[in-house]
Order: sequence, then C-alpha cells, then structure tokens
Amino acid sequence: MGRYGGWRCAVALAIGLCGPAQAEDGHDLWLRYSAHAGSVSASLAPFAGGVTVASGERDARVLTAASELRRALDAMVAAGGTGTGEIVLGTPAGSPQLRSLGLDLHGLGEEGYLLRRLVVQGRPTIVVAGNGGAGVLYGAFALTRRIEQGLSLDRLDERSAPKVKLRVLDHWDNLDRSVERGYAGQSIWDWQKLPGYKDPRYTDYARANASIGINGAVLNNVNAKPESLTGPYIAKAAAVADVLRPWGMKVYLSARFSAPIELGGLKTADPLDPAVRAWWQGKADEIYRAIPDFGGFLVKANSEGQPGPRDYHRSHADGANMLAAALASHGGTVMWRAFVYAETNPEDRAKQAHSEFKPLDGRFADNVLLQVKNGPIDFQPREPFHSLFGAMPRTPLAIEFQLTKEYLGFATHLVYLGTLFAETLRSDTGVRAHGASVASVVDGKLEGHRLTGMAGVANIGSDCNWTGSVFDQANWYAFGRFAWDPEADPRAVAEEWAAMTFTDDARFVQPAVDMMMRSRQAAVDYMTPLGLAHLMGTGHHYGPAPWVADLARPEWNPAYYHRADRNGIGFDRTRSGSNAVAQYAPRVARRFAGLDTVGDDYLLWFHHVPWDYRLKGGATLWETLVRRYDRGVAAVAAMRAQWERLRPFADAERFEQTAAFLRIQEGEARWWRDASVAYFANVSGRPLPAGVTAPAHDLAYYQALRFPYAPGQAH
Amino acid sequence: MGRYGGWRCAVALAIGLCGPAQAEDGHDLWLRYSAHAGSVSASLAPFAGGVTVASGERDARVLTAASELRRALDAMVAAGGTGTGEIVLGTPAGSPQLRSLGLDLHGLGEEGYLLRRLVVQGRPTIVVAGNGGAGVLYGAFALTRRIEQGLSLDRLDERSAPKVKLRVLDHWDNLDRSVERGYAGQSIWDWQKLPGYKDPRYTDYARANASIGINGAVLNNVNAKPESLTGPYIAKAAAVADVLRPWGMKVYLSARFSAPIELGGLKTADPLDPAVRAWWQGKADEIYRAIPDFGGFLVKANSEGQPGPRDYHRSHADGANMLAAALASHGGTVMWRAFVYAETNPEDRAKQAHSEFKPLDGRFADNVLLQVKNGPIDFQPREPFHSLFGAMPRTPLAIEFQLTKEYLGFATHLVYLGTLFAETLRSDTGVRAHGASVASVVDGKLEGHRLTGMAGVANIGSDCNWTGSVFDQANWYAFGRFAWDPEADPRAVAEEWAAMTFTDDARFVQPAVDMMMRSRQAAVDYMTPLGLAHLMGTGHHYGPAPWVADLARPEWNPAYYHRADRNGIGFDRTRSGSNAVAQYAPRVARRFAGLDTVGDDYLLWFHHVPWDYRLKGGATLWETLVRRYDRGVAAVAAMRAQWERLRPFADAERFEQTAAFLRIQEGEARWWRDASVAYFANVSGRPLPAGVTAPAHDLAYYQALRFPYAPGQAH
Repeated sequence: MGRYGGWRCAVALAIGLCGPAQAEDGHDLWLRYSAHAGSVSASLAPFAGGVTVASGERDARVLTAASELRRALDAMVAAGGTGTGEIVLGTPAGSPQLRSLGLDLHGLGEEGYLLRRLVVQGRPTIVVAGNGGAGVLYGAFALTRRIEQGLSLDRLDERSAPKVKLRVLDHWDNLDRSVERGYAGQSIWDWQKLPGYKDPRYTDYARANASIGINGAVLNNVNAKPESLTGPYIAKAAAVADVLRPWGMKVYLSARFSAPIELGGLKTADPLDPAVRAWWQGKADEIYRAIPDFGGFLVKANSEGQPGPRDYHRSHADGANMLAAALASHGGTVMWRAFVYAETNPEDRAKQAHSEFKPLDGRFADNVLLQVKNGPIDFQPREPFHSLFGAMPRTPLAIEFQLTKEYLGFATHLVYLGTLFAETLRSDTGVRAHGASVASVVDGKLEGHRLTGMAGVANIGSDCNWTGSVFDQANWYAFGRFAWDPEADPRAVAEEWAAMTFTDDARFVQPAVDMMMRSRQAAVDYMTPLGLAHLMGTGHHYGPAPWVADLARPEWNPAYYHRADRNGIGFDRTRSGSNAVAQYAPRVARRFAGLDTVGDDYLLWFHHVPWDYRLKGGATLWETLVRRYDRGVAAVAAMRAQWERLRPFADAERFEQTAAFLRIQEGEARWWRDASVAYFANVSGRPLPAGVTAPAHDLAYYQALRFPYAPGQAH
Repeated sequence: MGRYGGWRCAVALAIGLCGPAQAEDGHDLWLRYSAHAGSVSASLAPFAGGVTVASGERDARVLTAASELRRALDAMVAAGGTGTGEIVLGTPAGSPQLRSLGLDLHGLGEEGYLLRRLVVQGRPTIVVAGNGGAGVLYGAFALTRRIEQGLSLDRLDERSAPKVKLRVLDHWDNLDRSVERGYAGQSIWDWQKLPGYKDPRYTDYARANASIGINGAVLNNVNAKPESLTGPYIAKAAAVADVLRPWGMKVYLSARFSAPIELGGLKTADPLDPAVRAWWQGKADEIYRAIPDFGGFLVKANSEGQPGPRDYHRSHADGANMLAAALASHGGTVMWRAFVYAETNPEDRAKQAHSEFKPLDGRFADNVLLQVKNGPIDFQPREPFHSLFGAMPRTPLAIEFQLTKEYLGFATHLVYLGTLFAETLRSDTGVRAHGASVASVVDGKLEGHRLTGMAGVANIGSDCNWTGSVFDQANWYAFGRFAWDPEADPRAVAEEWAAMTFTDDARFVQPAVDMMMRSRQAAVDYMTPLGLAHLMGTGHHYGPAPWVADLARPEWNPAYYHRADRNGIGFDRTRSGSNAVAQYAPRVARRFAGLDTVGDDYLLWFHHVPWDYRLKGGATLWETLVRRYDRGVAAVAAMRAQWERLRPFADAERFEQTAAFLRIQEGEARWWRDASVAYFANVSGRPLPAGVTAPAHDLAYYQALRFPYAPGQAH
C-alpha cells in the first residue's frame, strides 16, 4: 500500500540507489512525498532543523499537523541537508511562543491559516499558524502542496480561509457494505468489524480529506436504515469519529425519518407529536454521549419512497425543525435534502423541489441547511443550475454535487468534474443586477448567511486506489478545493492535482490537464448532447436506453426526458410547456426561454425543437445532434492518443490502467453514439447526414442488451 | 501494494539505508523476498551469475518461472555478490541443453520438479527441471520457499510431484461481485471491467496460487446464474484465463443446469433430451473456442433449490455424463457436487448424499469427478469424514474443503485449518484392513484412479490482504500444500507459512505455530463442543442461535442438529436413531456406534446422551459441556496473550490487526459460550456446575440479538 515511505528510503532515493520500491496502486493519492523527493530537496534543505510545535500548544490537530510535516520532510529532505531552520506550528491561543510572533490572523476564522517565512533568532523559520487547530492542520497541508508542486518557499506568505463552513462527503454506503452508486468496491466502513477493529484505511481517509479541507463525512446512505441509529451502530460510528477527529473531521449520520416507529415503537413519526420529538431528543442525547462533536443529521424525506413529514401532512420545515431542535443544544446541524419528487405529482420533475421548498423560505430553524443538488433533475452530465439558488434568500442553501459518476460512465470514463463544479457555481442566478452567482449563494455572501455548506456524494470505496480509477481521485480532490473556495479555477485545481499525483513536469501536466478540461464536454456529447438528459438505462444507469418508455412512473422513463417524436425532440419548459423557466429570476428565465438565447448547452433541456430547425451555424438540429455524438466519440479517441504520448511520465501500473479505461470509454462512447443515433433516426424518420458513419448494429441489437449485474444498484 | 521490490532497493536494504519502505498491508502474502534479504543473502551469493532458461526452451510457464526467480534473486542477493554460478531452468523435451544433463525425471509426471545443485563447466549451478513447464514453475517456487525459510542450498537435491491432479479453488463469487460466504471484500473478479481491463491483481492471484501448486479456479458461484455462460461472460472468463495460463492455472465455470432453458430457449433441461445435449455441446464448443484449455464445469444440482437432473427424474449420473460428453473431446472435466439434500426428504440430512450417490458408483463417465465435502453436513467446525469416502470405489472422489470460514468466525477468528484438513485426510475409512485413509481415496492410490482432485472454497476477496486477515492467508496456503500432498503435516505447513510470512526466527515461528495448531480445537470448544454442529444463527451463520426451532424446513433449525431436551442432547445416528453409522465401513461404524468408543470429538454427533451421563473422566455430560465452552474461551485468551508476546517480531500493521481480531474473537467466544450455556441450562433445567461463571446476560438477551447486515449472505 505504501502509506509511509520512511526517511531512510528517501535518502537512498536521493543518492540514486532506490528505484520505485513498489507498484503504484494509487493508494497514496496526491500525497506522494517520496515521489517528489528529488525535485524539491533543495528548497527544503534550510529547514532540516526540524518541525516544532510551538511551546504550550496542545491541540490534537496541531500535533497531527506537525506529525504530517515531519512525515513530508522525512520523505523529501535529503539527510545531508545542513540547514538549522525550523518549521513552527501553533495557534496564538494555545501557545505564548506563537503569540509572541505578533502575526496578523484576523479574518482567518477557526479554519484559516497563515504560512510565512520569517527569521526567528537568526534562523530561517516557516510559521504555520491559525486561530484554531484545524487552521494549522490545513496550513501544514497547504505547505506540503506547495512543496509537492515544486513552488519556491523563499518569500512564503500565504493566507487562506475556507469560504464554506461545512465541507462534507456524503457516503451512500449501506450497512451491508454495499454502496449505492458506488463504483470503487465496497464501503470503506467495515461495520462488521467496527468498533473492535479500526482499519488503518480510516486514518488514511481522514488524512486525505484533511489535506483538501474536507471537514465532515456522512457515514451512511441517505436511503437510511433505522439500525444505523441503534446503540451498536452508534458505537461503530463513534469509533470512526475517534479516528477522524484529530484530522479535523466530524461524523454525521443519515437519519431515517420513521425511526421513532421502527426503533422507538411509537405509532407515528409525526414531527409535531411530543412523543416523537422526545424520542429524537433522547436519540440525539445518546449520540452526543458517544460522539461529543457529532456533526448532525442528513435527511432524505418524502423522496423516492423514503418516509418524511409529508406522510403526516406536515411540511418539510416541520420535519427539519424537529430534528434541528433535538440537535440544537449540542451544536449539531440538520442537512435537509431538497431532492424530492412525488410518485403522484404530475408536475415536471424539474420543478417539484422548487415548488415544494420555495414557499418554506424563512421557516427553517437556524441550524438547518437546505441541501440542493447542483441541477433540478439528478446529477446529469449537464444541467442548468438549480432554480432554488437565489430563490430562498432567508434559508442557507448547501449545494450537493455527485462525485461518484452514476451518470457519467462509472469508474472507467475519464470525466473531470472541476469544470462541472465551476460551471454551476459561476452561473448567474440573476437575482441581483450582478454578483449573484450560485457560488455567492452557497458561500453565504449574497445574503449574509453564516451557516454554509457543500456536499459531495463520495466516489470512495474499498478499492486500493480509493475511487476505482486514478483520474476519479481528481474529482475527490477538486471537490475539496471547490468547497474551500467555490470560485476556484478548475484548470488550476487540475494542475495541482496532476502535478502532485504524477509529476510536476510541465510536459506531463499541461497535456494531462488539457485532457481533463475537455473530458466532461466529451461525455456530454457522446451521452446527452444539446441539453438532453437522463437517457441512461433505467435503474443501473449504465449505457444508453433512450427508447425506454413503458415503466410505471413517467419520470422513470428516458422518453419522459427527451420527448422525441416524428417532428422534434426536447422538453418544452417554456410557457408553452411546463414553464419551469419561470422558476428562475426574470433575466435568467428570459435567456433560457428564448430559442435564440438559450444556447446549445441547454437547448433541448428547455425547448422542444423541430428536427429541421436550423441552428446558428446553419445545420439542422438533426444534423447537429448526430455530429455532436460523433464529436464526443472523437474527443475520447483524442484523449486516448494524448494519454499514449504521456507514457514516459507515468509509472506502468497507473499508466496501463488509465489506458485500459480509455479504451473502454471509447468503446462505450461509440455504443452511446450508435445506440442513440439508431434510436433517434428511427423516431425522427430521418436519414443519417452525409458522410456520417452508420451505427455498428441495428436498433434492436442495442435494445436487447441487458445488464442485470451492473454495479452500484440499490438493494 | 508493494508487489515488486526492485533490486536496487534491496541493495539499499543490504547496506542498511532503507527502512521498511511501506506499511505491511498483507498484499504480499508469503511471497516476501525483500523481507528475507538480510538473512539469506549469503547462501545465494554463489548464484549472482543469473537465472537462465535452458537453451531451446519456449514453454511460457518456464519463462514465468525464470522471471520469478530473477525477481527473487534481485530482491535477495546483495549486488556485491561475486559468484558466477547460475540457476538453469527447463524441460528435457524443450531444451537439448537440459536434456544433456541426463537428469532422472521419472515419476515426476508433468507437474513434478527436480531441484539439484550441480557443477556445470566448473560453475556451481542449480537446475530447476521438470517434464513439463508447470513442473519447472513449481520447482522455481519450491526453490524460493527453501530460500525464504533460510534453508541451505549446499546439497540441494529435492524432487517432488503433486499427488492430486486437479488442485482447484472454488470461488462462490457472484456476477454482481458479491461473494456468498465471502468475508474479504468483494469478488476479485471485476466482471464489469472485464475483458477490457485485466486488473494486476489477477496476476498476483495466479502467482500466489502457482507458488503453492494450485492449478485451477472455478470463477463463479456454484449457485450459478445462467448469464455466466453467455458470450459476454465467456469473453470475460477468457481474459482471466489468459492471465492465469502462464502460471499453470486453468479456468473452470460453475454451470447452471437449467441454462438450456434460460439461454437456449428450450422447453426442458432433461439430460437425455437430444436438443439439450446438443445445446451443451454447442456451448462447450463455444467456450473452448475462447478458452482452448478451459478446465470444465462445476455443478451444484438438485440441492438447496438449484435445478438438476432429478427435476426430470434422471439420476445425477445422467446429468453429469451429459455434461461430460460435451467436454470430453476437449479434454474437460465435470466436477459434480455430492452436496445434495432434498426439501422433501425426511431422512437425516447427514445421510442423504450417501443414499443418493452410492448406488451410482461406476455409472459416471471417465471425465467426471464426484466432489464430496469433507464431512456429511456442511463445513462445521468439526465433522467426521464423509461416509462416501471409501464407499464408491469405482468413482473418483474429489474432496471439498471450505477455506472461507462460514462456520468458523468469519474473518476475525484465528482458526488454522491445516489441522482440520489433516484430521479428515488421515481418517481411516475402514474399507481395508489398513492403509485406506481418506487421503488414499482422494489421491487415487486406493483404487488406482488417475483423475483426482481437491477443491477449496476460496477465502479470497478484494481486500488488500486478500483473505480478510493475515492468518486466513495460512488457510489458502495450507490448502495448496495439502492438495499437493494430502499426507502433509499441518505443523510443518504452518511453520513454512509463518516463516515466510513473518520471519524465520524460531522465537516467532514456534509460538505462532503453537497458536495456530491449537486454534481450531478452541473454536470447536467455544462454538460446538463434543460433536455438536450447526448451531449458528440461521442464514448468516454469525454467532450462536441454538434456540432456533421454528423454521419451515427441519434442517434449517439448529434444534434439528442438537436435539436437546430435558433429558439429554445429541443426534442419535446409531441403529436406534437415523442409523447413519451404517453408512460407514463396519469397523468404523462399530467405533462410532459405541458410546465408549466414539470419543469426545464425535460424541453428540452420533449419540443422544443423557445430561447426567458420566464421561470417562467422571464428570457428567452437562458439566463437561459447560467446561468445554469455558475451555474454548480460555484458549482464545491464551492465544491473545501469546500474540502479545510476539509483538517484537512483527510489523505494526499486521501485528495490530491480528491483536484487534483476537480481541474480537475473545469477545465472540464469550458470547458463544454464554449464549449456549444459558440456553442449554434452560433446556436441561440444570444449574451451572460449581465454580463456573454465569453468562453475562440472560437467555432472552441473546435470543433478541439480530444481525441483518452480517456479511457473506447469499442474494
């Protein structure tokens, strides 16, 4: 696994004796100090004097930070380094020594950090300081990040604080260790062996999260089982919390709304029933006895069959506020998901969350975060931003992204999500004349909210490489960096990741990042171009199935989303259709509603368009659609060729895995293209545009494919 | 993961520069060349001249063997070694050079090997020779085994050949990657990514198996899905076969008997129906086109709900012979399981397989192996040997052991199975005056069978350490060694394993092996002492549930097996009961039938005994039973203490994991003891013997425990 490259081996490396001591299975993620030893040794040489915790400091997270820096320096500094300089870590509150340096830490909050190079008593010194232990810990990782990227430490003076308060991974992990929409093995939580055995992977996980500023984890699936709130499972969660705590992370649990019935023996889970409220209060008290810094509950209620307050004709605010009351005295937070759509509601699915929650604006307790998916449907390759952003000024809204690629090719498609994060977060909500981006809603600036959050549905599993593929590690990494700063630049984040994960050689980094930056548009093009969505095989979501139209609930059918017929394709969400556009601020609504202004990306999301409609370039919609599918396939072929040229810069194991996955991706991109083109040609009755290659098989072939054992299915 | 420690790092190790370059996650199993470098370097120094494939030799397995030896020597020989001696590998058939040495390879078959130290042209030479490439490969691993154990090479002259022909792991791995009775993560077969991506783990797996002589793997669960025989899954299996082939391993598939209906659209799967026979012939031909050396089919028929020939009123021989005919021209084998018991059969479950199969003796085709579990029920902590061994002289019988510890504490109980293998294999079947052990049936000596086999239900999964715990690796190892030689000594095998896996320091090996040797009796004592069996929680088999008596099928209930009442306990299998004893040869039957001769181990397996019956020592059965439970718990406590003393000899990660698991085991042993004693005290109405500690809770507490998410459950 290679969790720890001891310093003596680093010495050997430095003097050219050691080759790669192990296969690169990806376990080390972007924390590969030994691999960078050769290139950074010089800049670190002055600090061979050591890593010191400022005197008096006792915060566990500062001790963790110091230990991390020692590990980094042991791996990266040549033993011959003669420098006597030091790295000093601490907080003014914890250490008189650090206080005596008179550093300006205003505006850094509890989690921000300052890195500064000073001369202290004649010796070169790097200070890693923060107002709280978490800040120092993040500062330590910021320092190693600089070093791993080969950046100079000569004039080091860096200050940074997270713009979002709760930066949380949501694990859709079941108690039987299966993972809903998991493509990287089983759950990393080995419930069977907890609390008796704390797998060292939990520490590795916490460390990786701390390195990118993630400060919380929801351990269990939002489709929650009541058992997760029983004594034995609380004890298991407490054992995980003990491991995560020194790394600045809190544990949260998904709560099943009907638990008072299933566990408490009550007849109801009505949130206004005093016995129900008392049961939850008792449960919260029990959890906090085991986990004093428990983060709180995540709740999926009245959605896709989950119980919730609507079962008792109460509002989502009633439900959330009841749980919030149980947590309030302990400092916990309720993350209440806005992802609802009702079995019986004939309204456009894209509208239902907005319709349900907007009227509740201002009615949520102070410790409730409303957690809204990035788009109005469900983590599609591309969606417009969710219209709730900007529409509920009196309610703090967390944004939920999906890191696991349920709709983006599972583990084997290379799709970098940094561009998707940025696209959503930079979207103008239109609720102000300017400056009202989704990011400004999420980070609380727009309305002055202090409780803020960003959630990522984790792509982490038991696979040795954590995420099922090396490049999916970049999505975990990017999530942490965007949660720290929702205005981050996706290219810069990709460059950081690529340099740390492979090599800082620009001949590798720039072409690799080029691939990453183009990758998500490629997936949009070969799966769901021009604003199409949700055309994946029903249930497992593996591969194309735009023809499915016979399932009981309308919104289970891909045909519900594309609405293709002889004349045209697309979902009319203008006034002549579902009028979902009206859920956006007027300026945005006008843009989306105009066939000339909506743009290619969201064209068929908002409009039903005739096949023969001519787009700006002059080609018909039908021609354009087919050529977009072609373009997607070609883009993957280009990525494959690009990667092949990078062979000299990567170790064999990670290179070959990526190469194999790109082959799979190209084959599946072609499958997507061929099946979709065959289907839409059939529906539209139109011939293929001139010069376009025909699908490899007829439509019946694609329709007959079955994947009963595709991974990630709920059970 | 540390699959490969390059030689340069070994150099650094030798000169004391490198510390352990990585955490010990267990991935390297017993193949830890680098770890042994210091202690063996001297004996290898004369052979620094290199590893040479004898001229002319082209067998892929010989090339694999040479590559393995180079890897070993690169890791273990100091670069300063000045010797010019060589290690030469090859077969007389493939290499004139090797033939010229005039070695005597008679009696080694295709898979045996000769290791001999010679002087060739004045240079010290070790020859690794065999009649076939597999023999050379096994010889190479035999050589590294000697080296890792620190044995001298000075007078090397070792010859060995496997006594059993098919040495096969049975993976109960489902196509959704869950593993029935798997406690080490998911299936190692990542069907979703196959054939496009061949995980390097497949190579590591094949290599580990080759190192212990395992030459086949059944890839999918005996509770088989028809899809495993479709084109896409055959292509996936072929990709695995391509990886396994150079390591001397063949791929087998579990076949679902009703596949002609489910895949072929036939109305029947009647084995005498010409269309059914033609379908299987076509399917076999299709498989062999993709996998020219396909091993054959494993079949579970008419057992636990699986389809089979009895559905058509045909015999098991009819079913097996039909499949055998389809495979015969390709050289494939049918492994037909004797593990059958019928839903509607009121006969003692322990008798049913014998009753069903003995009348079919001599009626199976030449390429059918009848695969019989070690005991008559189902892999219990202790069972007498299966009475079919010795009872079907005209039929080759393979023996099936379970390496995954379904009934032995899952991944967290330390239970070494070498003693169980030896106990069964050394059992005297009684069908001759002497020399008719189960081993002599299995290796074919007794009746002169050439087709022989041993199957191990694999304990391997996607966990980085392969088997869920370090000590479970020993059971995989021991299975390979016993399949090679059914008369192997379990202590010697454990010593080999411990020395290679940790250190050859006797201060570690002897105490560790002492623990292993006592471990299985400990589990018998705290779970099912004195011949009790199958008292585990129904379905998941986790923990005690002797009180379960209300399930639909009698043999699903633990109460069916222990038959405890106010007066006594045990299953009367003598003439006054089910008379299962009569299925054994007369001499053995007499011993089992006698209350004085049966012995403690099988007492309650064969007899219903009054609680107040006095055993040889003078204590009553009730007192003895309770004290056996106590003894089991005490044995685990002693193992924990023993392991603690071994801390200086093991790396931290493997030491701590084992220590944590022993803590879990001790807690669960106590749970077994307390729940069982509470229950049997209640049934018997007897007080606890004097001085015995009362159970920690009352019986109702234990009965209320539920484990809906225990791992390994079928679905």
